[in-house]
Amino acid sequence: MSESPCRRRCPALAVVGLAAALGALLAAVPLQAAAPKLAIADPLPSWNDGATKKSILAFIDAAVSDGNPAFVPPAQRIAVFDNDGTLWAEQPIYFQLAFAMDRVKRLAPQHPDWQTHEPFMSILGGNISGVLAGGEKSVAELIAATHSGVTTDEFAAVVQEWLATARHPRFKQPYDACVYRPMLELLAYLRGNGFKTWIVSGGGIEFMRVFAERVYGIPPEQVIGSMGRMRYDLRAGVPVLVKMPEVDFIDDGPGKPVGIQKFIGRRPIVAFGNSDGDQQMLQWTAAGDGKRFVGLVRHTDAAREWAYDRTSPIGRLDKALDEATAKGWTVIDMKRDWRKVFAFE
Amino acid sequence: MSESPCRRRCPALAVVGLAAALGALLAAVPLQAAAPKLAIADPLPSWNDGATKKSILAFIDAAVSDGNPAFVPPAQRIAVFDNDGTLWAEQPIYFQLAFAMDRVKRLAPQHPDWQTHEPFMSILGGNISGVLAGGEKSVAELIAATHSGVTTDEFAAVVQEWLATARHPRFKQPYDACVYRPMLELLAYLRGNGFKTWIVSGGGIEFMRVFAERVYGIPPEQVIGSMGRMRYDLRAGVPVLVKMPEVDFIDDGPGKPVGIQKFIGRRPIVAFGNSDGDQQMLQWTAAGDGKRFVGLVRHTDAAREWAYDRTSPIGRLDKALDEATAKGWTVIDMKRDWRKVFAFE
Repeated sequence: MSESPCRRRCPALAVVGLAAALGALLAAVPLQAAAPKLAIADPLPSWNDGATKKSILAFIDAAVSDGNPAFVPPAQRIAVFDNDGTLWAEQPIYFQLAFAMDRVKRLAPQHPDWQTHEPFMSILGGNISGVLAGGEKSVAELIAATHSGVTTDEFAAVVQEWLATARHPRFKQPYDACVYRPMLELLAYLRGNGFKTWIVSGGGIEFMRVFAERVYGIPPEQVIGSMGRMRYDLRAGVPVLVKMPEVDFIDDGPGKPVGIQKFIGRRPIVAFGNSDGDQQMLQWTAAGDGKRFVGLVRHTDAAREWAYDRTSPIGRLDKALDEATAKGWTVIDMKRDWRKVFAFE
Repeated sequence: MSESPCRRRCPALAVVGLAAALGALLAAVPLQAAAPKLAIADPLPSWNDGATKKSILAFIDAAVSDGNPAFVPPAQRIAVFDNDGTLWAEQPIYFQLAFAMDRVKRLAPQHPDWQTHEPFMSILGGNISGVLAGGEKSVAELIAATHSGVTTDEFAAVVQEWLATARHPRFKQPYDACVYRPMLELLAYLRGNGFKTWIVSGGGIEFMRVFAERVYGIPPEQVIGSMGRMRYDLRAGVPVLVKMPEVDFIDDGPGKPVGIQKFIGRRPIVAFGNSDGDQQMLQWTAAGDGKRFVGLVRHTDAAREWAYDRTSPIGRLDKALDEATAKGWTVIDMKRDWRKVFAFE
């Protein structure tokens, strides 16, 4: 263990420990004091009562209860979360794609050739389906044009500014307000119980790091994502890291367990995803020794959010849903299990 | 911040906090109790008193003192350490190279072609200079042959067994006992003051992770190193990660700031290295805003360890030493500054 022993314990336990110490001391001195009663508030108020919530709470309770057969030492309390569709929404298009398209519009005056070159032509003409029609090659070209040629610091500033000004087309909220309140509660509750919470997303690592700490309480060093190559350079003696157009790593599908091993170096005991891109991460987590919690967020609420699964071009949930059914992974039904959906509600 | 607030504080402070709480309580009850005096022990007993030790202690003290102009918020207390030559010895050859050569001997019966093929022929003939004469190509071939084709779990078991049985040729100690006691103290003291300690090494990430937590108190997720590609696979339905022979990332020289950005996503405020391979990491750390501590371990003690610098084929310290002199980085003179050298002393 690298950290001080105190982080192995949840704050609530620390309070109990202090109370116990005080209690023992008071018992030894000639003074009567009532032991303080600690009110146990519901740690997941945005989750409806039911089997899903109960199973999450029971898993965490067992994992942190010394002596329980399912007890997990603090160093192994690793929980991983997909981002798009699991921690924040991903419709009508991935938010990072919306960022990239806004960036193309902003940069267009410096790139006159974009007026006649796809996918830029479609973006500048407001034709989203034209962009998506180009497939992976199109998206790769778009990401290279909008996510490279700048330093890491410059890129972070551009994302920051976009988050501060852009608004989600349906909710008219900043994109980083379109995060799921029940998942924020779950992240905080896991951390309060000594878990390290990680993002493991197909999204861009440098994009997510801009807001992950502020919005999710997840520091940059616990964000894993897809990434481009970087180059170290000295500019007039000042070191910079320049983002290059070449892809370094795609953290999706079978890339997710690889990303977990690269960055974390041990297997998680808790994993949440929402699409087929998360299937291997959930398999990898579930296959470890001892008890594991594997959850799939299912988008079933067209009224409050969206309803989509097996045929959706974004966030398709098909094979992973079959495997969840076969293996008894927990399926979180958004409509049934979530009392509130978004942080802005 | 993702972790519970308690980990922001050093254990000593937590004890003071509890003592204060008890003291306040006792003051309120009709009982006289002497406030316990906490003896402040030297946190770096293996460092000789002098300018180096004083500057390290002063930097840490200022960084954690709220209100001090050099105060650093806990989330930004990132300290990075090279491994070979900085945390453990690297002579007469890099320890991982010794592991690879022992592995070749072990695997040789399954590879009759190695008897006539370099660098394996030289290794099997005990001719180390023949191995090194082959240069980078030779080393890459050696690493591919000994570090791939197995799962991550299998590889970790092989390293574990080697560490348990192999002995350093000069000290007759397990290799992971040939770690520097002063650096172990420094790592622990930094962590006690809320720093996250990281390894940023040219060595193999999966190799170092086997012992980093046990020996240095650095968990796998805070180890950055060179790595090969990995492939996710299902073997009879059981997921495995297979180590491939292709190089994924070389965490050396200009690769070190890149590795830091990939894995940590923010700039360290403390960095220690010992060779030209650390120069860019030290530059990158030093160039950040605010006060930074940048240290170079200089191998000056032929009696207790080794003395080498500008012309050594292993751990060459030349350009980085010039830059340290020019920029006022701290040079740790092993002979002068360390009262003890090794953990086994």
